[in-house]
Amino acid sequence: MSDALSHVRSDGSARMVDVSAKDVTSRTATAQAIVVTRPDVLERILDGTLPKGEVIATARVAAIMGVKRTSDLIPMCHPLPVSSVEVDIAGSGDRLTLTVTVATVARTGVEMEALTGASIGALTVYDMIKAVDREAVVADVRVLEKDGGRSGRWSRS
Amino acid sequence: MSDALSHVRSDGSARMVDVSAKDVTSRTATAQAIVVTRPDVLERILDGTLPKGEVIATARVAAIMGVKRTSDLIPMCHPLPVSSVEVDIAGSGDRLTLTVTVATVARTGVEMEALTGASIGALTVYDMIKAVDREAVVADVRVLEKDGGRSGRWSRS
Amino acid sequence: MSDALSHVRSDGSARMVDVSAKDVTSRTATAQAIVVTRPDVLERILDGTLPKGEVIATARVAAIMGVKRTSDLIPMCHPLPVSSVEVDIAGSGDRLTLTVTVATVARTGVEMEALTGASIGALTVYDMIKAVDREAVVADVRVLEKDGGRSGRWSRS
Amino acid sequence: MSDALSHVRSDGSARMVDVSAKDVTSRTATAQAIVVTRPDVLERILDGTLPKGEVIATARVAAIMGVKRTSDLIPMCHPLPVSSVEVDIAGSGDRLTLTVTVATVARTGVEMEALTGASIGALTVYDMIKAVDREAVVADVRVLEKDGGRSGRWSRS
Amino acid sequence: MSDALSHVRSDGSARMVDVSAKDVTSRTATAQAIVVTRPDVLERILDGTLPKGEVIATARVAAIMGVKRTSDLIPMCHPLPVSSVEVDIAGSGDRLTLTVTVATVARTGVEMEALTGASIGALTVYDMIKAVDREAVVADVRVLEKDGGRSGRWSRS
Amino acid sequence: MSDALSHVRSDGSARMVDVSAKDVTSRTATAQAIVVTRPDVLERILDGTLPKGEVIATARVAAIMGVKRTSDLIPMCHPLPVSSVEVDIAGSGDRLTLTVTVATVARTGVEMEALTGASIGALTVYDMIKAVDREAVVADVRVLEKDGGRSGRWSRS
Repeated sequence: MSDALSHVRSDGSARMVDVSAKDVTSRTATAQAIVVTRPDVLERILDGTLPKGEVIATARVAAIMGVKRTSDLIPMCHPLPVSSVEVDIAGSGDRLTLTVTVATVARTGVEMEALTGASIGALTVYDMIKAVDREAVVADVRVLEKDGGRSGRWSRS
Repeated sequence: MSDALSHVRSDGSARMVDVSAKDVTSRTATAQAIVVTRPDVLERILDGTLPKGEVIATARVAAIMGVKRTSDLIPMCHPLPVSSVEVDIAGSGDRLTLTVTVATVARTGVEMEALTGASIGALTVYDMIKAVDREAVVADVRVLEKDGGRSGRWSRS
Repeated sequence: MSDALSHVRSDGSARMVDVSAKDVTSRTATAQAIVVTRPDVLERILDGTLPKGEVIATARVAAIMGVKRTSDLIPMCHPLPVSSVEVDIAGSGDRLTLTVTVATVARTGVEMEALTGASIGALTVYDMIKAVDREAVVADVRVLEKDGGRSGRWSRS
Repeated sequence: MSDALSHVRSDGSARMVDVSAKDVTSRTATAQAIVVTRPDVLERILDGTLPKGEVIATARVAAIMGVKRTSDLIPMCHPLPVSSVEVDIAGSGDRLTLTVTVATVARTGVEMEALTGASIGALTVYDMIKAVDREAVVADVRVLEKDGGRSGRWSRS
Repeated sequence: MSDALSHVRSDGSARMVDVSAKDVTSRTATAQAIVVTRPDVLERILDGTLPKGEVIATARVAAIMGVKRTSDLIPMCHPLPVSSVEVDIAGSGDRLTLTVTVATVARTGVEMEALTGASIGALTVYDMIKAVDREAVVADVRVLEKDGGRSGRWSRS
Repeated sequence: MSDALSHVRSDGSARMVDVSAKDVTSRTATAQAIVVTRPDVLERILDGTLPKGEVIATARVAAIMGVKRTSDLIPMCHPLPVSSVEVDIAGSGDRLTLTVTVATVARTGVEMEALTGASIGALTVYDMIKAVDREAVVADVRVLEKDGGRSGRWSRS
């Protein structure tokens, strides 16, 4: 792993690092975010007693659209043609876990896309539960694994 | 505090809740996100040995611009005229804390704007350090306090 | 009703018409779009045999987000603070009807917002069924009623 | 033609389908939208008595820009590098027809881009004539033909 | 006129300055940008020999849409409800002048909106003539006058 | 150099020109914008007496993000995968010069991206100094050089 901050030039100024010479390869990344709330709130989001339980679906759509806005939001991110997004949302106890997997065929990886999607999805859940649990927290936004490109497969130990 | 999910109708379908009848008042909210990394990485971001140390400034700008994109990203959020954003970024040990305070004069509050700004700012830091610490995590994205509107002042206990 | 095209100046050039002197009042508009497909496709979208039937929820979210993007998409539209969006989606025979109601408190009306939301919602449905019915059509995108402002209540005869 | 909804997983949840393994090929699609208004309104838009008759030009620009925003608006659409857009607008009687042709060299087709451009263009026309014909309707938004990719050439029968 | 940079805090860090306490008043601003090209290029853009001479109309639409994107592009700009945009484009010799006038009723002024619209309009002209005059320049982007708010009317001397 | 306006069809109507058949090659472009202000204002922006002098960093980030928004702002521009952005900002006397270099591997060039980035960066500086120098001007927005593609290397004479 490099010792330098790639997005910073030698004088400390920011840049979008040049990826022109990198290979176009299949790349994937998976990231996760966790919404910590009260068990009764989680139950209400997840149960099937309402004919349309759209909190989860709304968070999923927000995550997918958030993935596509990444390079618009994160200043030094490269725009790239996202080729797949899958969002899994599962709850247990007081924790709702959003797991976002993104794929591309491009010159650079998609971990920022996966992280941004997971974050936006989790914030969307917070927005929809804040009237009943203002103290809910988004915890542990992190990359779980990535694959493709020169550095190959990596997964969080 | 309400017992119902405000953004969900009685059949479970999602909606943008009607705020037309709420008063236009001054509202503020403060939220925070924490980037957990290695102390040596934090040092490199924060020290003044480079003439331009733009990681922090880049995160600040990203947070401010992220605040303004909130209603574009979070499906049920109301667009509103943000009237102020301040972003404080401070580090200690292995933790960099981003604190975002947003103000508006509007019919609804700005906690989602503060949370979105803090998240985008923290992801921007991750983007700039991921080449040296892929395992860094964004933790504890949460509202610290909010003020204004019918429910008045609230701060996290 | 005026005899002139309000968005065009006397020499024929386009402008965003000045609404500065109009009153800030509550305004609502309802618009609709219809997706015409095959009955068997409609059934598959609407039935409850799958645990998560997210086509409808995805279209609803897209419609709500589309409402908020209206002034970004329609060149002469004024940006305004949308204060409510409700999206009803109902099917019968070979037709799925999306009905979008938007409210604001502003100097100008929201019929373009309602139309844009209905259109984007309907296109989202098309996107999700096109693999099984490429010939589906979005028909009858139109304003059903509007209220508020100087011209008062109007509904399609 | 497939029997399954490609954007929906086996449990009914939405996803952006994986196109990573599809070939990068030249693809085109043509879609159309029709604005139905009164003949006298159509005449006013189309005639050449004003030195600048910018209603048509404004709709054309909106359609082209709308094409480029498609993946931002339609949740499950893939972002792709649009390589050409042509917009033809022609009127007769009470109908103004917008025909949008989009090309790309990518892993997936551009019919959603063509449809979105045609819809946004038609809504832009409605916006500019609504002061004189509130009852105008956008009718028959549909794909006329598409070409490229594994499924080859298709045109509406 | 103030002696301090309003968008910078006492430690030099950037902020979006707080306008919550400022009055909501009618405000206008006019800005201009000049495209300097060859006289023969200017003639081709402006003459009426083609049935549709859409370079000017396209620049006008781009300027109006650019006005509405200002707070999305300029980091410290406040979002505000633009209530009018007029764009005049006139040429003479080797210079095409774009003059953009913006109005709002808000807590802060619209000179950045007028400047951004003029710049985007001018760049749009460059884009459309660059195949015949790559050396064209956008010169003299500047505020001509502004009115409204505490500082009242100002015009460039 | 061509004699025709590439973005205009034979009847004068605008189009996004077809680049499908052009080669995917490495392309770069450099553009510049100059902010003309008072020497004392320039000094305040550039000096190092404040611990965080974020005017320059904010302009750099705005320029980089502006580069990525080019095809969203300039109607006939093709979206393309920007692979690098560098922004140099240097001042002398009463002039601050922003120089933006953009690279891509695509079917069309990036001079519009470089120009848009330079313009947005310069407007960002104006926004941050306008409270102390309302008369500042953005001058000489122009392409300095471009390389790649069929027309090869070009630099301003």
